[in-house]
Amino acid sequence: MPEFLKVLPPADALRRLLEALPGEPSVESERVSTAEALGRVLAVSVAAPHPLPPFPRTTVDGYAVRAADTFGASPSLPAYLMVAGEVAMGRRAEVALNRGQAALVHTGGMIPSGADAVVMAEDCQQAREHEIEVLKPVSVGQNVLQTGEDVKAGELVLERGVILRSQEIGGLMALGVVEIVVFRRPRVAILSTGDEVVPPGIEPAPGQVRDVNTYTLSALVTSAGGIPVQAGIIPDRVDELLEAATRAHQSSDMIIVTAGSSVSARDVTADVIQRLGRPGVLVHGVSIKPGKPTILAVASGKPIIGLPGNPVSAWIVAALFVTPLIRRLQGVTGPLLTPTLRARLSTNVPSEAGREDYVPVRLEVTPEGLVAEPVYGRSNLIFTLVRADGLVVIPPATTGLDAGADVEVRLI
Amino acid sequence: MPEFLKVLPPADALRRLLEALPGEPSVESERVSTAEALGRVLAVSVAAPHPLPPFPRTTVDGYAVRAADTFGASPSLPAYLMVAGEVAMGRRAEVALNRGQAALVHTGGMIPSGADAVVMAEDCQQAREHEIEVLKPVSVGQNVLQTGEDVKAGELVLERGVILRSQEIGGLMALGVVEIVVFRRPRVAILSTGDEVVPPGIEPAPGQVRDVNTYTLSALVTSAGGIPVQAGIIPDRVDELLEAATRAHQSSDMIIVTAGSSVSARDVTADVIQRLGRPGVLVHGVSIKPGKPTILAVASGKPIIGLPGNPVSAWIVAALFVTPLIRRLQGVTGPLLTPTLRARLSTNVPSEAGREDYVPVRLEVTPEGLVAEPVYGRSNLIFTLVRADGLVVIPPATTGLDAGADVEVRLI
Repeated sequence: MPEFLKVLPPADALRRLLEALPGEPSVESERVSTAEALGRVLAVSVAAPHPLPPFPRTTVDGYAVRAADTFGASPSLPAYLMVAGEVAMGRRAEVALNRGQAALVHTGGMIPSGADAVVMAEDCQQAREHEIEVLKPVSVGQNVLQTGEDVKAGELVLERGVILRSQEIGGLMALGVVEIVVFRRPRVAILSTGDEVVPPGIEPAPGQVRDVNTYTLSALVTSAGGIPVQAGIIPDRVDELLEAATRAHQSSDMIIVTAGSSVSARDVTADVIQRLGRPGVLVHGVSIKPGKPTILAVASGKPIIGLPGNPVSAWIVAALFVTPLIRRLQGVTGPLLTPTLRARLSTNVPSEAGREDYVPVRLEVTPEGLVAEPVYGRSNLIFTLVRADGLVVIPPATTGLDAGADVEVRLI
Repeated sequence: MPEFLKVLPPADALRRLLEALPGEPSVESERVSTAEALGRVLAVSVAAPHPLPPFPRTTVDGYAVRAADTFGASPSLPAYLMVAGEVAMGRRAEVALNRGQAALVHTGGMIPSGADAVVMAEDCQQAREHEIEVLKPVSVGQNVLQTGEDVKAGELVLERGVILRSQEIGGLMALGVVEIVVFRRPRVAILSTGDEVVPPGIEPAPGQVRDVNTYTLSALVTSAGGIPVQAGIIPDRVDELLEAATRAHQSSDMIIVTAGSSVSARDVTADVIQRLGRPGVLVHGVSIKPGKPTILAVASGKPIIGLPGNPVSAWIVAALFVTPLIRRLQGVTGPLLTPTLRARLSTNVPSEAGREDYVPVRLEVTPEGLVAEPVYGRSNLIFTLVRADGLVVIPPATTGLDAGADVEVRLI
């Protein structure tokens, strides 16, 4: 491993990793039904095949008119218009308006040709059969949704690299785009190492513990839009781990390895990661607590995260790095924004300067607002995270936060 | 419909709806694999079958010792201890320590009987074969994770009503709880009404528009943990809508109906909802923009939401009400917390006092922080939401917000 590797702040560590990855998305694309594409990333931009709305529509119930015919209309001096017909919902407006004519229309209905505005029903009254009094003038375009007002024909409506939310799916459906091309979900291999680790379904013998990391990391990968590929529990030996990691490297787009907990087991993991391909290990140690002994590497274009074996450390570091990487593998454009909740810290929280502390907190709703109560527990204790609602980040420049401090809490 | 129904603020409207629902979860429970339970709601509380950790473990690499043997140790006056053996990872600690003895241990390994603390490897040095010098004293329990320090045997670790996040899944796995009982995902029937609405795969004739709401609402339901059941597009006629809604009411746990856009079509929807069962319509109109003509009802214990037909109004109201309802149907305990991002508003945004305005905004990352730029567009224009990253809520007591105001943005 190069000698110059040193402990980096989390943001710098992530940047170094992202810079070493290919610029282009590294997964292939596939055609899927738009209705099934929630959370997927668009691989081919979509242009509007036609304008939206495709015809002028009324936004109110009332009468389609020529605006000029209503000029100066008032309750004392109404404009009299002949009702030439009605536009039925979902039908072409068969009627065409001449001067002095109106047509009954319903919200969302088509504006008949000749009309250029709609008078709301409450601003009209029946004069006699087939005739109305308009009590209020309308201007050209009033209460009308123009053809193409939402989207013009040919307009680029969704660009490659966009994550499809419910509204994008709705927009595509409005345009009749019922199939799209998205990037394949990245496959993320998860390797859990440690001679003491056994599958959860097995009764551990004294000295053994059940595998936790495979399952927490799989769930984090799933939430981030990836497909977890559980590569199993590997003993702390270079040959076995190298074989399993090589196989995982060939068959997946990214690898997460949790190291055994002892220093020698961590060395084994670092050694194996370095041997998977070039450029190899880029970051060895992140200035974060918990999670310092994290390794970030790239081998033949694929990112590799080596995590500490402790379930809390592994979880917190994965929560930081997995989402940006899975987005990157699919070529997501746009910044990753992390919303937070503001809360008041219940007690002093000491911290060492020079590292980012991630403190699990429980949130309590009080009449004075949210209170964040730190959940203490060592990084070996998974239930520390179970008892927590969120994380408070203590920045590296401080030596802790005081009771009563305003903090931003990331929900976990 | 009772005469006394009046327009309610969104929070009051939701409260009235929730109060009319049964106190107990209305969906049945089912047994699932813990590994597949991300996002599910626990139906039966889980107690720890054994303590965690199940045996005392060292948190460092070093030597397990009797703390008393290290009393007063220093580099100038080290404590000399005989190395009685090594505890291999994943194995029972076979060695038992007597006074004056130590055992080599690796992080996560079992503490041998007789030992009550661990000296870190860097605080020891080899004296001769099978003997070490301890350069620093340790206190009883130092560097030891005690049996049950995370969870005690029999402790209630997860209560009924908890949503399972990645860490809960990990915690259950640590305890060997590989199957659990969760509530069935609620089935949410989605009915789209309107004579002008056609399925997205069809080329609309003039006057027709493609169905958007079925797909946006399905995606929102999926995100909230429900199962969308697409009940199709129903014409604006009482008999057909009543038949479809009755069928949906029988076969699902909740109904969302989007009304046709015209006043008469909305009346049809309200009429049908009222006829589905008791107590019927509870809220007719919510003081929110967009989305005022919203109907909230309960029929035979099942919630029904009647939404405006405009895709933006329907989306915004659904985004407010669907998640709390799906949580409630599964008996989720604990408050629903909505994290936000803080941003600076780019322009003045006027609003009418007395209603909550939900303003779609685009977020821009600038050197001075996030800027929220309102995305204007009428509530008929689905791409208004496509162009937006979040919503800013303008509270009912104000008449708008000024450019430069600090706002909280909910990501959408």
